[in-house]
Amino acid sequence: MKFARVVGNVVATRKEEKVRGRKFMVLQPVNLDMEPNGGVLVGVDAVGAGVGELVLFATGSTARQTELTENRPTDCVIMAIVDLVDIDGDPVYDKSKESG
Amino acid sequence: MKFARVVGNVVATRKEEKVRGRKFMVLQPVNLDMEPNGGVLVGVDAVGAGVGELVLFATGSTARQTELTENRPTDCVIMAIVDLVDIDGDPVYDKSKESG
Amino acid sequence: MKFARVVGNVVATRKEEKVRGRKFMVLQPVNLDMEPNGGVLVGVDAVGAGVGELVLFATGSTARQTELTENRPTDCVIMAIVDLVDIDGDPVYDKSKESG
Amino acid sequence: MKFARVVGNVVATRKEEKVRGRKFMVLQPVNLDMEPNGGVLVGVDAVGAGVGELVLFATGSTARQTELTENRPTDCVIMAIVDLVDIDGDPVYDKSKESG
Amino acid sequence: MKFARVVGNVVATRKEEKVRGRKFMVLQPVNLDMEPNGGVLVGVDAVGAGVGELVLFATGSTARQTELTENRPTDCVIMAIVDLVDIDGDPVYDKSKESG
Repeated sequence: MKFARVVGNVVATRKEEKVRGRKFMVLQPVNLDMEPNGGVLVGVDAVGAGVGELVLFATGSTARQTELTENRPTDCVIMAIVDLVDIDGDPVYDKSKESG
Repeated sequence: MKFARVVGNVVATRKEEKVRGRKFMVLQPVNLDMEPNGGVLVGVDAVGAGVGELVLFATGSTARQTELTENRPTDCVIMAIVDLVDIDGDPVYDKSKESG
Repeated sequence: MKFARVVGNVVATRKEEKVRGRKFMVLQPVNLDMEPNGGVLVGVDAVGAGVGELVLFATGSTARQTELTENRPTDCVIMAIVDLVDIDGDPVYDKSKESG
Repeated sequence: MKFARVVGNVVATRKEEKVRGRKFMVLQPVNLDMEPNGGVLVGVDAVGAGVGELVLFATGSTARQTELTENRPTDCVIMAIVDLVDIDGDPVYDKSKESG
Repeated sequence: MKFARVVGNVVATRKEEKVRGRKFMVLQPVNLDMEPNGGVLVGVDAVGAGVGELVLFATGSTARQTELTENRPTDCVIMAIVDLVDIDGDPVYDKSKESG
């Protein structure tokens, strides 16, 4: 999995049949400084994430193993909403201290 | 999934048996400024996309999960035609405002 | 799938059991200007491609879905021999006009 | 597989259902000089690794083949704790000589 | 598949249960000039390769399709030992002419 910020969403009226009704979120991968790191992806949300939140996403066939996405054509899924990232004993991200 | 413009198509009379009859589209991945971002790919179309449209494509084994591509040797498929991309509340792409 | 030129082949007398008898071709990925784009790959040929031809190749588990490669340990397969690539209405590659 | 240092961990109270109870470790891929090489990943631990240890991790569908992760939506798993790396006959990493 | 030199091996007493007894080799991917090309990988050997040899390796789920690695959590496997690489009719690598 990798870290990303949820930065937006996509409206697409014409979607492949099996993903109709799924919400498509725009993800900006970030590094441990929370700076952008690589191009944006569009994922399906499995945990109820909102714009602005730091999340973990999985790619590839893994994205089809969640309850929400099983056997559906998805190659990117939001797996978790991050509360705290601890590096060598120091918190580099603490959701409770983010301005809301 | 990632964003791409459909920029063209490929004619190939000699294709692997299982993909005969499938239409091959040339995809130029783009970033949120709609600028090219990485090399072109060739995908199978699952939604009836045309040249010039902004689409979402999926890669890897996911590409074989659509109704059109199930169990066929495809590693890239067009999943949706994008109508609107909203980033932090601002539309960065709106299909209805594109000159046609 | 991606575009590549077939540039050569590999002789390997000691191969994993399940791929014995398969022909290994060296592929140089190319962009739409037909210039090299990224490092070479070695793929199994599913369509009878020859050195010098422009082909489409697939990677990952997809490479094991062709008639020739089903359930064999292959992660790269030549899927089609390209006759014509049309970008925004202009042919950027036309096999019939290549000097041969 | 690739080499990485375990550099931290992630707390996420809201996780996809099937990965609840799994520990998420932050991995910094490294080269043979043990210098950072590429962006961080978050993996599930299959061997009891701790922060500071050099490990091997696997990605993609492979990450779902361990006893701990079978059929769970994981795309990165710690596969082994490295004791010794020998390159052309010279040890470039020896865990027993690391200051602890 | 891609070309790599086998440059060393890894000792890991603590490994995921299903890969115990498998030998882990360090692979340096190379280009057609036999120069390093990208970071090292660690693969399982399916053909009896030794340090110094030029090999072809496969990645992803393909790595679990060999007789040796079936249903084991492996994402990189040595598939073949290269004897000869022929590019446009010229041998760029000939094992029999390597000093040994």
